[in-house]
Amino acid sequence: MINFQTSPDQYKHWKLSFEGPVAKLTMDVQEDETLADGYKLKLNSYDLGVDIELADAIQRIRFEHPEVRAVVVTSLKPRIFCAGANIYMLGTSSHAFKVNFCKFTNETRCAIEDDSRASGRRYIAALNGTASGGGYELAIACDEIYLVDDGNSAVSLPEVPLLGVLPGTGGLTRLVDKRKIRRDRADVFSTLAEGLKGKRAKEWGLIDDTFTTTKFSEGIDNRVREIVNGHSSGGASGKDAGEPQARMPALPATGIKLNPLQIQSTADSRDYRYVSLKFHRDKRYADLTMRAPESDLPTSAEEIGKLGDDYWPLRAYRELDDALLHLRVNEPEIGLVCIRTEGNIDNVLAVDKTLAANRDNWLVREIILQMARTLRRLDLTAKSFFAIIEPGSCFAGNLFELVLASDRSYMLNNPDETVEVSLSELNTGAFSMSNGLTRLQSRFLAEPKKAYEAFAHEGRFDTEAAEKAGLVTFAPDDLDWDDEIRLAIEERTSLSPDALTGMEASLRFAGPETMDTKIYGRLTAWQNWIFQRPNAVGPNGALTNYGKPTQAQFDYKRT
Amino acid sequence: MINFQTSPDQYKHWKLSFEGPVAKLTMDVQEDETLADGYKLKLNSYDLGVDIELADAIQRIRFEHPEVRAVVVTSLKPRIFCAGANIYMLGTSSHAFKVNFCKFTNETRCAIEDDSRASGRRYIAALNGTASGGGYELAIACDEIYLVDDGNSAVSLPEVPLLGVLPGTGGLTRLVDKRKIRRDRADVFSTLAEGLKGKRAKEWGLIDDTFTTTKFSEGIDNRVREIVNGHSSGGASGKDAGEPQARMPALPATGIKLNPLQIQSTADSRDYRYVSLKFHRDKRYADLTMRAPESDLPTSAEEIGKLGDDYWPLRAYRELDDALLHLRVNEPEIGLVCIRTEGNIDNVLAVDKTLAANRDNWLVREIILQMARTLRRLDLTAKSFFAIIEPGSCFAGNLFELVLASDRSYMLNNPDETVEVSLSELNTGAFSMSNGLTRLQSRFLAEPKKAYEAFAHEGRFDTEAAEKAGLVTFAPDDLDWDDEIRLAIEERTSLSPDALTGMEASLRFAGPETMDTKIYGRLTAWQNWIFQRPNAVGPNGALTNYGKPTQAQFDYKRT
Repeated sequence: MINFQTSPDQYKHWKLSFEGPVAKLTMDVQEDETLADGYKLKLNSYDLGVDIELADAIQRIRFEHPEVRAVVVTSLKPRIFCAGANIYMLGTSSHAFKVNFCKFTNETRCAIEDDSRASGRRYIAALNGTASGGGYELAIACDEIYLVDDGNSAVSLPEVPLLGVLPGTGGLTRLVDKRKIRRDRADVFSTLAEGLKGKRAKEWGLIDDTFTTTKFSEGIDNRVREIVNGHSSGGASGKDAGEPQARMPALPATGIKLNPLQIQSTADSRDYRYVSLKFHRDKRYADLTMRAPESDLPTSAEEIGKLGDDYWPLRAYRELDDALLHLRVNEPEIGLVCIRTEGNIDNVLAVDKTLAANRDNWLVREIILQMARTLRRLDLTAKSFFAIIEPGSCFAGNLFELVLASDRSYMLNNPDETVEVSLSELNTGAFSMSNGLTRLQSRFLAEPKKAYEAFAHEGRFDTEAAEKAGLVTFAPDDLDWDDEIRLAIEERTSLSPDALTGMEASLRFAGPETMDTKIYGRLTAWQNWIFQRPNAVGPNGALTNYGKPTQAQFDYKRT
Repeated sequence: MINFQTSPDQYKHWKLSFEGPVAKLTMDVQEDETLADGYKLKLNSYDLGVDIELADAIQRIRFEHPEVRAVVVTSLKPRIFCAGANIYMLGTSSHAFKVNFCKFTNETRCAIEDDSRASGRRYIAALNGTASGGGYELAIACDEIYLVDDGNSAVSLPEVPLLGVLPGTGGLTRLVDKRKIRRDRADVFSTLAEGLKGKRAKEWGLIDDTFTTTKFSEGIDNRVREIVNGHSSGGASGKDAGEPQARMPALPATGIKLNPLQIQSTADSRDYRYVSLKFHRDKRYADLTMRAPESDLPTSAEEIGKLGDDYWPLRAYRELDDALLHLRVNEPEIGLVCIRTEGNIDNVLAVDKTLAANRDNWLVREIILQMARTLRRLDLTAKSFFAIIEPGSCFAGNLFELVLASDRSYMLNNPDETVEVSLSELNTGAFSMSNGLTRLQSRFLAEPKKAYEAFAHEGRFDTEAAEKAGLVTFAPDDLDWDDEIRLAIEERTSLSPDALTGMEASLRFAGPETMDTKIYGRLTAWQNWIFQRPNAVGPNGALTNYGKPTQAQFDYKRT
């Protein structure tokens, strides 16, 4: 079982240090500390374990060190920044694992950009040596890239020429859409195994600048000093897809601690404080239940700061995030997740009111952004989701996003019982999807005014009102309820899991596309295709044969 | 060898008839007239041969019958409109063929929408019976959909539940992005093998209206009459992704005839009047040469009308279109196409001047639109393209789009010889890519002003000027030229063809996404992935087992 929880004192591969407004994230991968057997993490190459630490570090910088304005990402290894995802790990992994590994690493790089865009921290890739493949893909997720000019170090994407796969951790997309490299140069660069060194790399826009070996530390320090002193406009092309850098808000001196989540597991359940998973593995589905907050939660930012990571929205969504990752990686045969909620709608709406009223506070803002990231993780999870709305449920405000994020929703229609849902101010824009729309906007693309009508609705929606407003898919009555839910589950879990993955990835993202959706849609889908092709993973495939004395042999038919 | 040329007198599966401003395109697939052995085209199911006729018919309506304002697409088979792509054909086809088949059918449906958007013709899907799978996908490519209400006929996308594949001919994308069906309803519809009948189909926005059996012809006729009389705003939701319907220009009474292309083939060449293909199969590349027009071409719309399909832009691009299709389907092992041109730049620029000056003329407009579609076909072709710019070449104006569409370009730098390229007015907007940008805009996303600077340049570009302006990738000098081209070809054709396909599909489409690019990117990539998966095409896969007494068995791991 893969565990996604960690903390700096447990890190094996990264060192996270702080000096006033500057964080330093230093990669020093221990080659024997692998997540599985059969490979060594040489040359700062990474497996999922390395990336779990990176994701944790980025999260902790945001919550535990809000004073940080610049993050320097570098390496402790001489002459090498990072060699990318470990090839032998990829070569020996199952298809499903490869896909989930890539998705998580993509989400981690998007989390860097989310921090930069939404919270104004600037990420500096200080390439003290060669950055190849996933190493360069990590660098282009940062705002600025500086490469040591030692006559040897280069940036490269050798996936196509050496491995027969794509730079799929955002590489191809960020080349042309973030750094806006000319497509013919991107073509040359992506087929050049040895990559490009300082001068040409800068000329083509692959890096922002170079420093000689002796001036490297000084050059990075100077740039970091400019940033923390407010000159954040440096970097030739390290801009985030045309979006303006968020203005740096006044930052507090101290953050809050993210303590480990408490989890109790049995053979068929996994329980957190506010989230529970119940596995019905023989039927290939799970129940995921989120519980509402208590009634006496603080309403001021100061009290929230004191409560810290015990505050419901932070705790509950951290738990949801972990539950989703657990489902993806450790429960591959679970194809459907029934989302349920329990508790008092008033308490959920009270939390939303507090969050909305205090959204200018740094911690509340970070909490809302973390909830948004978790909901995006759900959108990108390759499982079907059905929201089940029954008496005692509390799909309101932020928890109503779970209904909107689900592929379908079922709401019991029984006049003798109270079954209600509700919107809150947070549904109007706090939780944008990867495509830049809110989930209500995505839902009502054909009739945008229905979103406004739903917000204009006084109070809660009972089942008939919710159905009329277009907020739920089906509203079976009491007599049909059990059968309808049972049949829907049976039917869904009988379908081809691959067809469902492709279908859901298409239907969930109507409307505009962004760099993020291009990475998760176009680029990821092509990579997954290639990860199935004999030319990559067959006995004579390039990925299989990497590092072996034998050479790859291709079926040259173009498709 | 598959032949993409046809004409109405050769059609086996479609009847194309005209009555004043109304064209009728009637599907009546002959089940034994298949393109390959091993399947029968029952229930108006189709193979590539059926779709080649459809593509030809749409093209001919535009050129031969410009007086047409409404096209009714219907079927001669009782109670069935179209059952979609033939499953047994798909089940027995190679992966490469399946992918190319799907791409061509997608391009045909996009051609319907191009005609509607750019030339203002309105396509009416008159579903006289059930439209399932690709049958419904054909219908949603039309502007309006009417279904007979006979208590039996339905629209459906049974691919996911019955076949374990996607409705990949635009189906999923058009559901949520064109008809803007609510995503939860799209989810239900796409997993419901039997589909939805009239009332609910209309309520959910899947069709625009229903007519009873006895009123069906009359209902369609009335709607068509409204359209040709200028009331084109009908149809509840048959809008093209938010783009306004083109205004119907004044249409002439007679068109021009599209005569068969003259083709001479040998074992290693295929020669048209203005286009030549030369195959170097042992080296897995081909030369594609386009020749410039003669010097005495007409300059008025009237004379162009008289010249008809002999007019260079129409003839040369129809030949290019056929050459691209030939390369895709009949030369699968050719991985790289070196694009060359021969002739006088002045003559190319003269043609562009004439086209630009007469672009309000219906025929000139259709010619430009056809050139644009052909260039988009090139963008979407899964081969690498290198443009080779040498003395005697004429990459100017419309032919310079070939340089911009190529993955790379090589321009000889030899001061002793004349090597030049040139832009024309047509490069500023006549030939938009699928993403809605011009190829120059796509090229200069990072520095939009470079596109303006290039247009502001006086006269032609020699090699140094072209390189300085960013118009070409490499400019080797005379001494290195032969070696550099040879090495570039050898290197490119040695790489994994699958990785190149995924890479090119990612790098060619930077910037915004449209419904078209979502179909060719996201949807197609997922479908290609699924077309590789044992759950679809393995011995126990759903596609393999369709219609057999055995049942599909899935590996239920979600990826």
